[in-house]
Amino acid sequence: MAESRAFLDTSEPNFRPLVVIELAKGTKGETVEWFTKRIEDKKANGGAQLLVKPLVMENGDENIYLVGASHLRLLLGAETVGLVKECNDNSMRTFTYSSRKTFKDFADDNHNFLTVGECQYIIKHELENLRAKDEKMIPGYPQAKLYPGKSIVRRLLTSGILVQIFPLHEREELKKLRHSWYGRVKVGFQPLDEIRSYFGETIALYFGFLEYFTFALIPMAVIGIPYYVFAWEDYDKYVMFATFNLLWSTVILEVWKRICAIMTYRWGTLLMKRQFEEPRPGFHGVLGINPVTGREEPVYSSIKRQIRIYLVSLPFVCLCLYFSLYVMMIYFDLEQWALDYHEKNGSNFSSLMLFVPSIVYAVVIEIMNRTYRYAAEFLTSWENHRLESSYQNHLILKVLVFNFLNCFASLFYIAFVLFDMKLLRQSLATLLITSQILNQFAESLLPYWLQKTHKKRMKKRMSSLKMESDLSLAEQVNLEKEMGTYLGTFDDYLELFLQFGYVSLFSCVYPLAAVFAVLNNITEIYSDALKMCRVYKRPFAEPTANIGVWQLAFETMSVISVVTNCVLIGMSPQVNALFPDSKVDLVLTVALVEHLLLAIKFIMAFVIPDKPRDIEIKLAKLEFESLEALKQQVRATYTSNCEK
Amino acid sequence: MAESRAFLDTSEPNFRPLVVIELAKGTKGETVEWFTKRIEDKKANGGAQLLVKPLVMENGDENIYLVGASHLRLLLGAETVGLVKECNDNSMRTFTYSSRKTFKDFADDNHNFLTVGECQYIIKHELENLRAKDEKMIPGYPQAKLYPGKSIVRRLLTSGILVQIFPLHEREELKKLRHSWYGRVKVGFQPLDEIRSYFGETIALYFGFLEYFTFALIPMAVIGIPYYVFAWEDYDKYVMFATFNLLWSTVILEVWKRICAIMTYRWGTLLMKRQFEEPRPGFHGVLGINPVTGREEPVYSSIKRQIRIYLVSLPFVCLCLYFSLYVMMIYFDLEQWALDYHEKNGSNFSSLMLFVPSIVYAVVIEIMNRTYRYAAEFLTSWENHRLESSYQNHLILKVLVFNFLNCFASLFYIAFVLFDMKLLRQSLATLLITSQILNQFAESLLPYWLQKTHKKRMKKRMSSLKMESDLSLAEQVNLEKEMGTYLGTFDDYLELFLQFGYVSLFSCVYPLAAVFAVLNNITEIYSDALKMCRVYKRPFAEPTANIGVWQLAFETMSVISVVTNCVLIGMSPQVNALFPDSKVDLVLTVALVEHLLLAIKFIMAFVIPDKPRDIEIKLAKLEFESLEALKQQVRATYTSNCEK
Repeated sequence: MAESRAFLDTSEPNFRPLVVIELAKGTKGETVEWFTKRIEDKKANGGAQLLVKPLVMENGDENIYLVGASHLRLLLGAETVGLVKECNDNSMRTFTYSSRKTFKDFADDNHNFLTVGECQYIIKHELENLRAKDEKMIPGYPQAKLYPGKSIVRRLLTSGILVQIFPLHEREELKKLRHSWYGRVKVGFQPLDEIRSYFGETIALYFGFLEYFTFALIPMAVIGIPYYVFAWEDYDKYVMFATFNLLWSTVILEVWKRICAIMTYRWGTLLMKRQFEEPRPGFHGVLGINPVTGREEPVYSSIKRQIRIYLVSLPFVCLCLYFSLYVMMIYFDLEQWALDYHEKNGSNFSSLMLFVPSIVYAVVIEIMNRTYRYAAEFLTSWENHRLESSYQNHLILKVLVFNFLNCFASLFYIAFVLFDMKLLRQSLATLLITSQILNQFAESLLPYWLQKTHKKRMKKRMSSLKMESDLSLAEQVNLEKEMGTYLGTFDDYLELFLQFGYVSLFSCVYPLAAVFAVLNNITEIYSDALKMCRVYKRPFAEPTANIGVWQLAFETMSVISVVTNCVLIGMSPQVNALFPDSKVDLVLTVALVEHLLLAIKFIMAFVIPDKPRDIEIKLAKLEFESLEALKQQVRATYTSNCEK
Repeated sequence: MAESRAFLDTSEPNFRPLVVIELAKGTKGETVEWFTKRIEDKKANGGAQLLVKPLVMENGDENIYLVGASHLRLLLGAETVGLVKECNDNSMRTFTYSSRKTFKDFADDNHNFLTVGECQYIIKHELENLRAKDEKMIPGYPQAKLYPGKSIVRRLLTSGILVQIFPLHEREELKKLRHSWYGRVKVGFQPLDEIRSYFGETIALYFGFLEYFTFALIPMAVIGIPYYVFAWEDYDKYVMFATFNLLWSTVILEVWKRICAIMTYRWGTLLMKRQFEEPRPGFHGVLGINPVTGREEPVYSSIKRQIRIYLVSLPFVCLCLYFSLYVMMIYFDLEQWALDYHEKNGSNFSSLMLFVPSIVYAVVIEIMNRTYRYAAEFLTSWENHRLESSYQNHLILKVLVFNFLNCFASLFYIAFVLFDMKLLRQSLATLLITSQILNQFAESLLPYWLQKTHKKRMKKRMSSLKMESDLSLAEQVNLEKEMGTYLGTFDDYLELFLQFGYVSLFSCVYPLAAVFAVLNNITEIYSDALKMCRVYKRPFAEPTANIGVWQLAFETMSVISVVTNCVLIGMSPQVNALFPDSKVDLVLTVALVEHLLLAIKFIMAFVIPDKPRDIEIKLAKLEFESLEALKQQVRATYTSNCEK
């Protein structure tokens, strides 16, 4: 579509840098020339039709390039990536250049129609989809092979010629966002729409979920407090608490889907079609025809991928899980051995030895987590998923299962093998509070300290300048390229997921968990916000319609928690005292209650619609219109052949 | 769309009767005149633009009318109802009149492009959507009130002026179908495509499911036979059998979804859009604007419907279920009382008394079933569902739950309250075999006898004629209007559902159930085919994309059967012998195994895709095309406003 408008003039006098490309120092001239030519080349010639300018640094290096695009080019790009924007009649529609006048706030001279985040996303998309035509290799680097359809940027990255691509911060906008987000102490909601237009939907959705989840935990926390204050240990009160928790966790997960649909509809991403995504940059295969779009692109057999997933990845993951359990058993043996040793000797040395197993285990777990993460990334990349979303889902699933086991296996062991409720409560409290303090340190204090040293370094280098906003472009780029890279929402969600596990899996043993979770999340919002705005490079905006595989993960956790809570209640001495004669009756009663709760859970999940009715209607309307349009088009095409 | 072509000449010299309308005898002349005028009137005037001819019977009565339509009118109607047909490039597309030339086998003189079933469906759709304009009542019947938007046919039916509407059989086609379906004794598949083009998708899908289900039961039956022959009663063999059954039942239900998608894609119904269905004839409400299509139609608040469902229907159903359980308890009390009485007296009279409770219970159950069915129909109709499919689903769910309880509650009571495995096996065998014999009689022998008397009656009336095919039209209509009405696939599916229950719920107690089920289903196919072709009036074809709520019902049954089978195995003396010391260990082991099986079931259901990959691609392609078409259309509309 956009190709046919390749004659349009996409150069512009006032160049606005949006994205930074950092090449390796000493990159050959012919390579740079070829690469910039490909970026600037017209769409019709297989280029990206963007604007590139070298940035001359103070020290004379010329390895940094700024990429921008004309307003017109960005609008055409918005059409290519399938952005959905609000129309004048308040409906959401896929943006097309020709219909641009029907969109709300559109004016030819309004350069804020597309948010900066969207512009940067478009440029990233165009750069990543710059594919080799008949080049056999990257000019100047014969070892960096190319074949038709291979993403050039990907090859440049893997062969080390391209160091990084990152979007630039907008100083003024960021300042405004910081102010309304965490600049003043206030009680209220986060400015999610502003976060979305600056950082994109994926990050805004994470903060939306964090906020929603915190609010949703408040009832649990409020109910949990009297258990601690009045030391309620009656089984009936625990049963009530656990039952409330289980049903509540189902309700909040179902309601989140609705809230998420409302948000992503407003942001337009609910309507973006996932299946027509371009293949992800890492995707490789023989150049063929996409059966859905009819376009030329790399094709990879789905059966081969299935074989790789089920015959290699799955057994590998199972093996790792087994290994992790094995290590845990060794840890418990060591613990026992240290305890025995201490009882036998009773010296200072032996009491020190008591801590050795825990420390060794913690170190081993950390090593295993990191090694496994590498392996999972390698395997998922090797599975060769066509879509980025599918790649992410498979990676998340792999890492998730392993982390779940590492985190909770020891608690399960204490609860259901050692039957030691006191130790369970103690371990749970220790794990929860330690992990929260560590996270708060790593995400709030550490960044604060980093920020301070940053400022100092800055001041030293630019002694005459006082205001940040007065930084020259070169200085800004230089500063930002040294910042850490935000690796996606994975770790943030994982933290919430594990927290949800602590709160729900053993809620009837430790009702205070929800209180700690709420307190943690309130500071978490601020520290995460600080992290996004101050510590990391600006990340590229990524459109997304939901929290993906995390929804499934949270739902699975809430199903598992029904089972664990029922078993825990069944094991409590108070409930055991109710069935003095027959343990069998006890177990049967617990099993019955568990099945009833599970049935209620599933019925509730089935009955609560995933999308609010008005969103449902809007989606149906759009589908109806597109169907009618198809009819019209077919009619128009063949009307000349008709005789009447 | 079709309205704009209302000028087209839709009268035709050679009138082909498709649908019969039978009015009450003595219907006033002005009413008949008004009704036929509305049917024949142009679309633009709010008519159906069909052809009507009175049929003069031998006895001079003139209360039967034949409805037909010109070929052109039917093609326009096919567009209105959104039929999906195969194109020349083998893709399935929504039929439009203007693009007719792109469809396979289309020719202006080929009157077989639409199957007769489709033509009759179109006519039924047009008749049912004949709505009152400014009439306040049906002319001649002041008590039969009308308001704008009310379906005229519906009002005529409820006020007794219209006796029935039914489609005519095609003698020649039916003969061919009968021959290839059950005319010769052969081993092989049913001619599902032919069944579909004669009887429509709903019925063809039922026969497809029946056939598939029978084939799927064969492995279970084959494995079940040696248990009977060698009297295997070892728990390990039972465990293996039950495990196989449970996983197999998951697999067959998942695979059915795929097979169903393949079939309904070929038939075009997979692509028909459910949400753009016209409201069902019984739907009433204030005339408003449909928010999806923007068309004028009755509108009814969804909240009101929800209130009716949850505050009236749901409590009523629960009350009925409670009442049914209460009756069952009385039955078991009576049974006990009769047994005691017999033991005390031991006379002939007392041994006769033994049968009284069962007979009374059977009669009461039958009465309850029928009363409940009426109540369920009334309630579901009162809930005022907009779509026929939604009405059907709610009705089926209501009746299903009640029938499930009536059928299996006594078995559950015997198994899990009385703990009497022998009685369970005996009751199961009795129930299964009795119900099958009764069904076979009611569906095969009775129809055969009816058919014979029919023929005799026919011969008496037309003594000179010998061949059926030589019947005059008046005679054919007269014959068919007296035939019974096929009330939909509900009872047929219910039979299969209960059979699936007998096979899977207690499979480890009575492995022979699958054998009986297979034997029954083989004759069931033939008797059902006979029933469709010979006993009943031809039913209207109904497009459908899947077996709807039945899929959910079968899946729920297979989940419940995991629980029952695990409990039954846990109760078997052999397994009990394995845990001589601790019943608690036994119950815990059983619970663990059950949870594992359930987890495997859900993972399997999650991993097996619902649609085969090639169907998935074809659907995505169509969606992509319709999206592109929408873009094109928007572009075309606004291209004139653009300045370049």
